[in-house]
Amino acid sequence: MRRFVVVGHKASSSGDFKLDDMAGGAGRLDILLRCVNSAFFLSHGIRKDAEIYLVLQGPPAPTAIVRFVGSDLKYLNPDERSTGALVRTALLKMDGREWTRSSPGVSVSRRSLGDLLAELSAHSRMLLLKEDGAPLDGMGAEDVTFVLSDNQDLAPAEEELVNSLSAGSVRLGPLSLHADHCIILAHNALDRAAQG
Amino acid sequence: MRRFVVVGHKASSSGDFKLDDMAGGAGRLDILLRCVNSAFFLSHGIRKDAEIYLVLQGPPAPTAIVRFVGSDLKYLNPDERSTGALVRTALLKMDGREWTRSSPGVSVSRRSLGDLLAELSAHSRMLLLKEDGAPLDGMGAEDVTFVLSDNQDLAPAEEELVNSLSAGSVRLGPLSLHADHCIILAHNALDRAAQG
Repeated sequence: MRRFVVVGHKASSSGDFKLDDMAGGAGRLDILLRCVNSAFFLSHGIRKDAEIYLVLQGPPAPTAIVRFVGSDLKYLNPDERSTGALVRTALLKMDGREWTRSSPGVSVSRRSLGDLLAELSAHSRMLLLKEDGAPLDGMGAEDVTFVLSDNQDLAPAEEELVNSLSAGSVRLGPLSLHADHCIILAHNALDRAAQG
Repeated sequence: MRRFVVVGHKASSSGDFKLDDMAGGAGRLDILLRCVNSAFFLSHGIRKDAEIYLVLQGPPAPTAIVRFVGSDLKYLNPDERSTGALVRTALLKMDGREWTRSSPGVSVSRRSLGDLLAELSAHSRMLLLKEDGAPLDGMGAEDVTFVLSDNQDLAPAEEELVNSLSAGSVRLGPLSLHADHCIILAHNALDRAAQG
């Protein structure tokens, strides 16, 4: 399984936003929506072995997490607007800490980044994507979780948290890229490794 | 220079579309807008050595081409909606075959795919991105033009045209991907090659 955790520092944690203003009023939710596209789309289908967790840390707080699971996903289209509608629907159905299913393959929970990472790290190798990380190579088919951030760097406390649970930092190329572009490169590196 | 030509078979060739319906009424313009994002964005800036040509072959015809030039670009944001607004503005200012500038780094012209490719191939190495192409490696810093298609394959006549002008077909990984994801991988391959 390939998992991606994307931290949206100002992304709306309620469904009270407009689909016309996701780059503004929804706290750069657009960045996270492009990450969903990158995590799942192939030319002719959906990656069944992928999951993504959007960590919405913006108002009104506390943090909400929207999870997309490739093996169950339906109704996902590649454009930002329709994916934004799936996220909004999920947030409107949120019911506390339990994972609440809002549409096939999409669910939502109120829980912290720390809780999420602790759960995932119990069964998945966690890697922080970072400009000064080691090159990503030699990866096998194991369960791996990549942690990425939106247009802001992880806060020092967040980075410390990830480091305490992770197997290290990796980079995917010589230049620093947007989170959604990094996901494309991570998939490609793993696709190539899987082909041998 | 890295150039990308993306053929939008049904993408609106007039500015008469709604920003709320770019995946529908505008003929999958959303695909081309994501390609613009992929062509230019770095974490902390714009790729100055990149250009993209959106070939809009949908109604009302004839074909319109919107060109983005990285070295001159201003007002480009990563979300689909704002890039769609730049394309719409360009189309509304279109004035025949001459390139008409609509905003810094963005211009528009009524010309055919054939005319565009003939002009580019005079000074740029043209490569068709294709699932069964050769691996892209050994590329230097030369001027290169990648030709991609939207969610439809190139029509036989289009592929014949590209083949008559191109230096061959290349692929970027073991799986078939969306055009915007291919652009990310092409940039990464060239970024790595440039680093040596």
